[in-house]
Amino acid sequence: MDSQELVERLLRGERRALARLLTRVEDGSAERLREVVRLLHPHTGNAHLIGLTGSPGVGKSTLTSALVGQWRSRGKRVAVLAVDPTSPFSGGALLGDRVRMQDHALDEGVFIRSMASRGHLGGLSWATPQALLVLDAAGFDVIIVETVGVGQAEVEIASAADTTIVTVAPGMGDAIQAAKAGILEIADVFVVNKADREGANRTVSELREMQKLGHGEWLAPILKTVAARDEGIAELADAVERHAKWLDEGDRRGSRRLVRARVQIRELALGEVRERFAELGEGELVERLAEAVARRETDPYSAADELVASLET
Amino acid sequence: MDSQELVERLLRGERRALARLLTRVEDGSAERLREVVRLLHPHTGNAHLIGLTGSPGVGKSTLTSALVGQWRSRGKRVAVLAVDPTSPFSGGALLGDRVRMQDHALDEGVFIRSMASRGHLGGLSWATPQALLVLDAAGFDVIIVETVGVGQAEVEIASAADTTIVTVAPGMGDAIQAAKAGILEIADVFVVNKADREGANRTVSELREMQKLGHGEWLAPILKTVAARDEGIAELADAVERHAKWLDEGDRRGSRRLVRARVQIRELALGEVRERFAELGEGELVERLAEAVARRETDPYSAADELVASLET
Repeated sequence: MDSQELVERLLRGERRALARLLTRVEDGSAERLREVVRLLHPHTGNAHLIGLTGSPGVGKSTLTSALVGQWRSRGKRVAVLAVDPTSPFSGGALLGDRVRMQDHALDEGVFIRSMASRGHLGGLSWATPQALLVLDAAGFDVIIVETVGVGQAEVEIASAADTTIVTVAPGMGDAIQAAKAGILEIADVFVVNKADREGANRTVSELREMQKLGHGEWLAPILKTVAARDEGIAELADAVERHAKWLDEGDRRGSRRLVRARVQIRELALGEVRERFAELGEGELVERLAEAVARRETDPYSAADELVASLET
Repeated sequence: MDSQELVERLLRGERRALARLLTRVEDGSAERLREVVRLLHPHTGNAHLIGLTGSPGVGKSTLTSALVGQWRSRGKRVAVLAVDPTSPFSGGALLGDRVRMQDHALDEGVFIRSMASRGHLGGLSWATPQALLVLDAAGFDVIIVETVGVGQAEVEIASAADTTIVTVAPGMGDAIQAAKAGILEIADVFVVNKADREGANRTVSELREMQKLGHGEWLAPILKTVAARDEGIAELADAVERHAKWLDEGDRRGSRRLVRARVQIRELALGEVRERFAELGEGELVERLAEAVARRETDPYSAADELVASLET
């Protein structure tokens, strides 16, 4: 089926078209990806994008599942994109869709997809922004992008999401670890999950202390949840909705999306250049340059110059 | 002082030249960086580079400090580069050199430096490969690059290090979490630190089970340590030295370094392109393109094409 027809079926709400377009975006050639994006792009911009992040073990999957239930009860359609930074060498996602969030398996208002992180963009899957377009065009009200990981991925989420939820747990990644990981500044909402554990209140006050060192116009609320028992989830959804409302005042949402577009354009352009490096006989040229560098006959910068020069001819 | 003179002083073993060159590499202009690399490169290739990684909280700093002590007792000179992925927005490293590893403060055979991750390369500081050149040329026998984080940074360490140590702790990041984070395949040596805690043996057997799913020519040993009490550290140093010996058989070290050179050249070349995007009126052109994308007048790919085209004129 050609992409044009698939997109039309997607816009009519066909579930199978959604799954097939996501596969096409994830596995397709650059050519196909480009076509899908061009067709979808005019129909996007309506969903509220939520980035949900935190270290391994804080309970992100459970929290996501609880949030899905909460928004379903409020009549919203919810999509989840779980970006697992699985092995860059082996590819596939370790924990597939099948074992995730079985509670929502039969709900037509919920769509859940795991994507393997391919590592191109430092944590977030290369195809994530494109997959977001598919889900957005499919008419989901809320899209949650859940990432495992610390570092660059969070920064990308912050530039891609309307609201970023940063999740910590007591006793395993305290506030200082969160600060070390650089995730304090990107939070629109903090969640201390597993808050029935010892040390939850200490983690909350540590986060509050850290926040005093500086924050922007929006002061991120700090919430306690026990996602496994659905505690604090309604309050979390409320906090996200308050942030959404705040974004809509004075067109803050618009300027966030402008930042997002800027980052995306630059990353796509760099991706194109990267591909050209590959096309331009990366095998031969880079191999020869690498050998010269390893033998100390040339230095890495001069080699890089030669590679860039090869791009321009 | 010009870079030429600084490099000469470095090669004569002057401690202050070392610190100044590292600062120059970290903060200097692209021009200066390039000059320093050109001067240093012929004098490098002798140190054994170790990547030490793991999630926040597993005790990497303590382990690094214990390893430094161990190698000092074996007569080796040791340098440590701690790459803290601190805030991409605020810059500086949260935990500075002063509070780290005070045991070795007066030892001339030890050099410790924290670098802020600037996020350019997805976790590892932009300047790290260049900083490694400085330490290598300074004649350290062993260089440990310690990174906090999960994901892309580990892959970069694997491509930059001769030996990669992956650290986990019982009960906070079990083997499944390690697999999710994609750090199993890059390990040359596994360490279960804090092994006096409950669940250490279970973590060891989980790692062993995971390993059975597939490994390369080298089967990474799995060691238990209690770094805070110096337990298991001699065995860890032995394991690293066995791996180093294995690398030297059949020139495996040479082919690892070829991979490293290839990655470095490509990243430097992409960095150059990124800078050109900035120079070529990123402000105006990218701004205009981002607005067109946000208003749905054009799609991100067409905008990226325009950006790449601007590079070539």
